[in-house]
Amino acid sequence: MTLQDPQAAWPTQVRVREVGLRDGLQMCARTVPTAFKTDWIDAAWAAGVREMEVGSMVPAQRLPQLADTPELVRHAKRHAGLTVSVLVPNLKGAERALDSGADTMLLPLSASRAHSLANLRKPPEAVLGEIEAILTLRAQRGVAMGLEVGLSTAFGCTLQGEVAEDEVLRLVAALCALGVDRIGLADTVGHADPRQVARLFAAAQQLAGARLDCAHFHDTRGLGLANVMAALGQGQTRFDACLGGLGGCPHAPGASGNVATEDLVFLMARMGVATGIDLDALLALRARLAQWLPEERLYGHIAQAGWPRTIGTSSTVVCA
Amino acid sequence: MTLQDPQAAWPTQVRVREVGLRDGLQMCARTVPTAFKTDWIDAAWAAGVREMEVGSMVPAQRLPQLADTPELVRHAKRHAGLTVSVLVPNLKGAERALDSGADTMLLPLSASRAHSLANLRKPPEAVLGEIEAILTLRAQRGVAMGLEVGLSTAFGCTLQGEVAEDEVLRLVAALCALGVDRIGLADTVGHADPRQVARLFAAAQQLAGARLDCAHFHDTRGLGLANVMAALGQGQTRFDACLGGLGGCPHAPGASGNVATEDLVFLMARMGVATGIDLDALLALRARLAQWLPEERLYGHIAQAGWPRTIGTSSTVVCA
Repeated sequence: MTLQDPQAAWPTQVRVREVGLRDGLQMCARTVPTAFKTDWIDAAWAAGVREMEVGSMVPAQRLPQLADTPELVRHAKRHAGLTVSVLVPNLKGAERALDSGADTMLLPLSASRAHSLANLRKPPEAVLGEIEAILTLRAQRGVAMGLEVGLSTAFGCTLQGEVAEDEVLRLVAALCALGVDRIGLADTVGHADPRQVARLFAAAQQLAGARLDCAHFHDTRGLGLANVMAALGQGQTRFDACLGGLGGCPHAPGASGNVATEDLVFLMARMGVATGIDLDALLALRARLAQWLPEERLYGHIAQAGWPRTIGTSSTVVCA
Repeated sequence: MTLQDPQAAWPTQVRVREVGLRDGLQMCARTVPTAFKTDWIDAAWAAGVREMEVGSMVPAQRLPQLADTPELVRHAKRHAGLTVSVLVPNLKGAERALDSGADTMLLPLSASRAHSLANLRKPPEAVLGEIEAILTLRAQRGVAMGLEVGLSTAFGCTLQGEVAEDEVLRLVAALCALGVDRIGLADTVGHADPRQVARLFAAAQQLAGARLDCAHFHDTRGLGLANVMAALGQGQTRFDACLGGLGGCPHAPGASGNVATEDLVFLMARMGVATGIDLDALLALRARLAQWLPEERLYGHIAQAGWPRTIGTSSTVVCA
């Protein structure tokens, strides 16, 4: 038996969430002016991006690069049909998020205990308690805002090494029991391989069903798009990505960061899977990003090689 | 139904053929001294590589970079268990190959008529005739040398654009009828996407069965390893790759070349699929390659990021 059924029905479309404004910029030393970020949001929306993580509700002194998050949410919400996520580390952040007008709160929950302590200063159990408190607060406030949990380090951790799949699945089950709206699996540090991705998404889906609805990969070791394909092969249709492959892992200097949005969009367009995103417009925005962040190395292949000149045009295929 | 069956049996091992000495070096302006090439062969063999394409039986004046191919075959054949391929463009080259002591003649047959004319100055039908003549010559000579045909531009062509899948399959059937030993599908110019790879390998296998036994991908647009996974998903277990991602396409300046051997070996090792190749030894060889070719940009991710430090060691996993 083959691993992949060539007769199976492929998805006709996927959703790409641009997370560069949060996951990318938080790794950059430079604090990008708010005007650049609003330009980014506007140009990405014009290119067809319909979901963005625009920042994080963390104290400004901890991450000055993202201190303008509330303003960015307000700006982004002017665009019709744009779904806006903000990262929320705890109950305090959730209070601010509930006031912000964002569509989705994104809670990180590390499957690695060591990473959880380093990232949120709490073990996973305490983060689950915080999520329960946030759900209660949201119900009290009556705000129609989604609560998505991103299971960080689900495929491995630079601090503790292997992360047991049973532990990941235990957390998925616990999140379902709490009643979160969505769960994603994140390869925070670029350890995942496609076989592991297929196995873990299949097992998590057994527990969470359609609630399992985000795949977040880094390209640290070149497996980002292969991992995207493995998740797609398990029926996942919502993917995080960073323009220019920003982001990454402080433990792998010189290594590439998140899956590059433009490469992901190219992959899908070439396969005839619609993202609604115009690749040429996205590449023009990437060129501006390079100007805003002159000291950052951008990654990704399609910006170098370009759309195959003899195969239609990018817009044609994106719209097909 | 999902595209990938997470319960399906994964292969326990794959074969990686290093093609850098031919596909890589023919793209480099510099002619590498034979002593460097024999060092490359020796070090790759010591690292566990058991199949290499060491050169091409083309006239020395056409490709001076590969003029030492007969000497390299003799050198490589000193290593026990090393399978040695040489590229052969025509009957004249096959005569030289049959005298060389190589194990495999590799004939390129372009599925694109335009590429065939540009590359071999013959349309595909004439190349099929040449292959028939080579098979006759081999039978007359009674030499036990494999004849493998690499179907170039099987996924698209920079000259003619789309390559009809029916044309690729027609050529696969013709090659089976002629009685070649092995057929590979090659994405010569980096146009392939994983969906196309899955579809075309599945269809070709219906015609060729186990004779379809090589997948050759370029990483021009970042889809190299995703395409490897798609071919693996159809049961393919033999892959071409170039150390440092050498090679590539003259029509995409600045774009990366072949799938990097070290990234492919990392991918397989991380999935627990044995290649027999020690990644650390391969990376040490890559560092020497960078010294031999100071003006060439090398590609690949794992050389930058390194094996995840908290996951065993590369050797442990390779041997698992």
